Amino acid sequence: MTRDDCTVFSSDPQSWVGQHFLSATQITLPALELLLREAEAMKELVKVHGGDLRLQGRVLGSIFFEPSTRTTSSFQAAFQRLGGSCIHVNESSSSAQKGETLSDTVRSMACYCDVVVLRHPVQGSVREAAMTCPKPLLNAGDGTGEHPTQSLLDLLTVKLEVGEIRNKTVAFVGDLKHGRTAHSFARLLCLFSGIRLIYVSPQSLAMPEEVKKYVDSRGIQQHEYFTLDEDVLATMDVLYMTRVQKERFPRAADYEKVKDIFRVTPQTMQLCKSSLVLMHPLPRVGEIDDRVDQDPRAAYFRQMENGMYARMALIALIMGVSGVSNH
Amino acid sequence: MTRDDCTVFSSDPQSWVGQHFLSATQITLPALELLLREAEAMKELVKVHGGDLRLQGRVLGSIFFEPSTRTTSSFQAAFQRLGGSCIHVNESSSSAQKGETLSDTVRSMACYCDVVVLRHPVQGSVREAAMTCPKPLLNAGDGTGEHPTQSLLDLLTVKLEVGEIRNKTVAFVGDLKHGRTAHSFARLLCLFSGIRLIYVSPQSLAMPEEVKKYVDSRGIQQHEYFTLDEDVLATMDVLYMTRVQKERFPRAADYEKVKDIFRVTPQTMQLCKSSLVLMHPLPRVGEIDDRVDQDPRAAYFRQMENGMYARMALIALIMGVSGVSNH
Amino acid sequence: MTRDDCTVFSSDPQSWVGQHFLSATQITLPALELLLREAEAMKELVKVHGGDLRLQGRVLGSIFFEPSTRTTSSFQAAFQRLGGSCIHVNESSSSAQKGETLSDTVRSMACYCDVVVLRHPVQGSVREAAMTCPKPLLNAGDGTGEHPTQSLLDLLTVKLEVGEIRNKTVAFVGDLKHGRTAHSFARLLCLFSGIRLIYVSPQSLAMPEEVKKYVDSRGIQQHEYFTLDEDVLATMDVLYMTRVQKERFPRAADYEKVKDIFRVTPQTMQLCKSSLVLMHPLPRVGEIDDRVDQDPRAAYFRQMENGMYARMALIALIMGVSGVSNH
Repeated sequence: MTRDDCTVFSSDPQSWVGQHFLSATQITLPALELLLREAEAMKELVKVHGGDLRLQGRVLGSIFFEPSTRTTSSFQAAFQRLGGSCIHVNESSSSAQKGETLSDTVRSMACYCDVVVLRHPVQGSVREAAMTCPKPLLNAGDGTGEHPTQSLLDLLTVKLEVGEIRNKTVAFVGDLKHGRTAHSFARLLCLFSGIRLIYVSPQSLAMPEEVKKYVDSRGIQQHEYFTLDEDVLATMDVLYMTRVQKERFPRAADYEKVKDIFRVTPQTMQLCKSSLVLMHPLPRVGEIDDRVDQDPRAAYFRQMENGMYARMALIALIMGVSGVSNH
Repeated sequence: MTRDDCTVFSSDPQSWVGQHFLSATQITLPALELLLREAEAMKELVKVHGGDLRLQGRVLGSIFFEPSTRTTSSFQAAFQRLGGSCIHVNESSSSAQKGETLSDTVRSMACYCDVVVLRHPVQGSVREAAMTCPKPLLNAGDGTGEHPTQSLLDLLTVKLEVGEIRNKTVAFVGDLKHGRTAHSFARLLCLFSGIRLIYVSPQSLAMPEEVKKYVDSRGIQQHEYFTLDEDVLATMDVLYMTRVQKERFPRAADYEKVKDIFRVTPQTMQLCKSSLVLMHPLPRVGEIDDRVDQDPRAAYFRQMENGMYARMALIALIMGVSGVSNH
Repeated sequence: MTRDDCTVFSSDPQSWVGQHFLSATQITLPALELLLREAEAMKELVKVHGGDLRLQGRVLGSIFFEPSTRTTSSFQAAFQRLGGSCIHVNESSSSAQKGETLSDTVRSMACYCDVVVLRHPVQGSVREAAMTCPKPLLNAGDGTGEHPTQSLLDLLTVKLEVGEIRNKTVAFVGDLKHGRTAHSFARLLCLFSGIRLIYVSPQSLAMPEEVKKYVDSRGIQQHEYFTLDEDVLATMDVLYMTRVQKERFPRAADYEKVKDIFRVTPQTMQLCKSSLVLMHPLPRVGEIDDRVDQDPRAAYFRQMENGMYARMALIALIMGVSGVSNH
């Protein structure tokens, strides 16, 4: 990675302006602190005014080669609340069907827009498209690669829920093999001192070695379990649930065996700290019982809302309109 | 129905603010009069200025589990003309495909939006989703259940066309069995004194007993016919045509027998009052001859336009920005 | 064509207000000069401010019966940058599926909007819909008929790239039989004195006689070639490439024979003038080598961007807000 296609951001807002955002690795600790402060200001702005007009006349183009309701909606709402407008293209309506290259599709969209959001099923494709994209390109997920804005909202959620990210025990539970969001979030948490990571998954869906090696290299403590035990539950400050998809298991019987073990119910919550933050990237399909929604520690809908604030902050920084509001 | 999920509105604008709108039964006569006044003001606003900025920074989220071009377009145009922005999700792009519950889908959308519009093919589903939706939820049709904003625009049309709704003879013609809009409109008309209702349909597509019982309980006169006769045509103040769909008939031959009987042509119009209001919820597929479009009594395109004004009024009341314009 | 459905525009902005735009034949030379000036002002507006608010509260409705990402995006971005909002309907979500006529679909959309953009696969359909559409209707392509806004952006591109359209040698290369954009552009170029047209195509994909007759009738020089020769390349001021689609050839072998002949590479560019303007309506599928993108004479992405400025100018003229900016 060179500076050309993937600038590393700092606490200086100028370091963000006009840049692509392709990978969580662009985020340093000071950069993250700036973004989190900006996101908190966005939350306040939305609460008081709904939004403002700082991006009036600006256009965001989103290109989604696989559907993602939430990510699309979140980016669009974020841009619109800052006064801008959106145009959207999905796979079925794109010129890719006429044999156009991804690079041309993205570059064409950039002709009409001030910033482009791209989601594509192939790892590395977003970074490749960025090389010829004359406007800032934001990675909204590239297959098994990255989905860096998701990690930003996860961090923002911990910050807003407990005030401080350092010195927390964060547990990842469920399918940790395929959970892209868990991988990115785990890596970003390594920026903070005193973090302790816990992984709880079926043995066949464990956290990949690659992530564990990275965490180890940063001197962060990590522990792995294959059942969700009472004493482990009691130590968690953050419990990050992920979706366990039936289709990830070679045999349906294997799924049936584990699906109830990795499920949070009101009974599970009784075993957790009163200050626990219960997160989930959503959608859920049974990993968290509906009755848990009433528990004040259930943070997943606030987490989803934070996605909009984190993206407003990112967009404002990239567009050079952070720290100001012309409301 | 408790106040919790389905507040009854009054002439006090405060009684609307932040509430769900799920059913026409929430509308009292004073509430309706307020909404109609507000809608007339919206019509004037659009005529003079196009719109205003009172919802600047606000976002409407629409979720449609079955397509409805007009309802989607009408809500979006209404919200945008008041200065807001829209995000839209349809069935094929929603996370329902990943096994998510309707309640979670709606609640997720509510994280990004200030108000949510929902259309779903299952009766009662919108009301169920409302129970966990933290933002105002507007029912845009729930299967054979309700489509309450349609009735509001129908009433607005009578009001704008003839100035007064009381003491009118309103005839419903066509498929009255499946015509959800006819059912709701008939019920709402019962709020007005001196109303007389006429039903004209093939015998197999008659107005349901349930609606007739309700009308009777309100002391409103009603008459049923199975052919569209000259003397009946001459008594109508409002003629509300509905679509007669071929697929509703068990045998194609039955359809062929009636399709021309329940059809409005220039000849039909000659038998009607010069002050008649000819309505149709559209789309039409032959029930009204194109040549009738030139007749000044043909109100169906104005009726469609009124849908936008009625929805602007409803949105303004629910969002707490009625009666003011910051243009 | 009568004035009723297809007004001819002049240099007086009033002649555009509230009119349909259905055909390039509505454009006179003075009208075109007005539009190009307006488009240049739009480019400056976007560069400096992103956009303005002159269409605040206004709504554009687009109805696309065949997908066209670029045209949709371009119209939407154009309208939004002037402060307006957009609603969009595509074939799969339209009521045409319920048996509605095109005229009714368009007229319904017009109930919510201030201007309607229509694309339809059947030649003449847009003009037919215009007859009953109470709001300005803009033709965004009607099958093998016209796509008049495309020609406007092509002309704008020549103007912006070389400052002057008169006395230029413009070469069309590729599939000239099916290239609707080439036909319209060739006709419009005939408005300018001293123009010389060159056609280079496989023999089976030659420029239609109809176009050649029209060009001849305007006293414009034209030359036809079936190979792309060095000496011809050296005379071109503008090289307008078009997509050669495999499916246009009766036999795959015929396609393989010609596809590399009508292809622009860095080597081709060495044979051209240093002031050449290389254009392509995009998407491309190999007619222009990616390596040519670095050449400053490669104007196709600027051409695409100009589509937005040309449409902003057209919309401003039709909506009666040209020549002013309330930014």
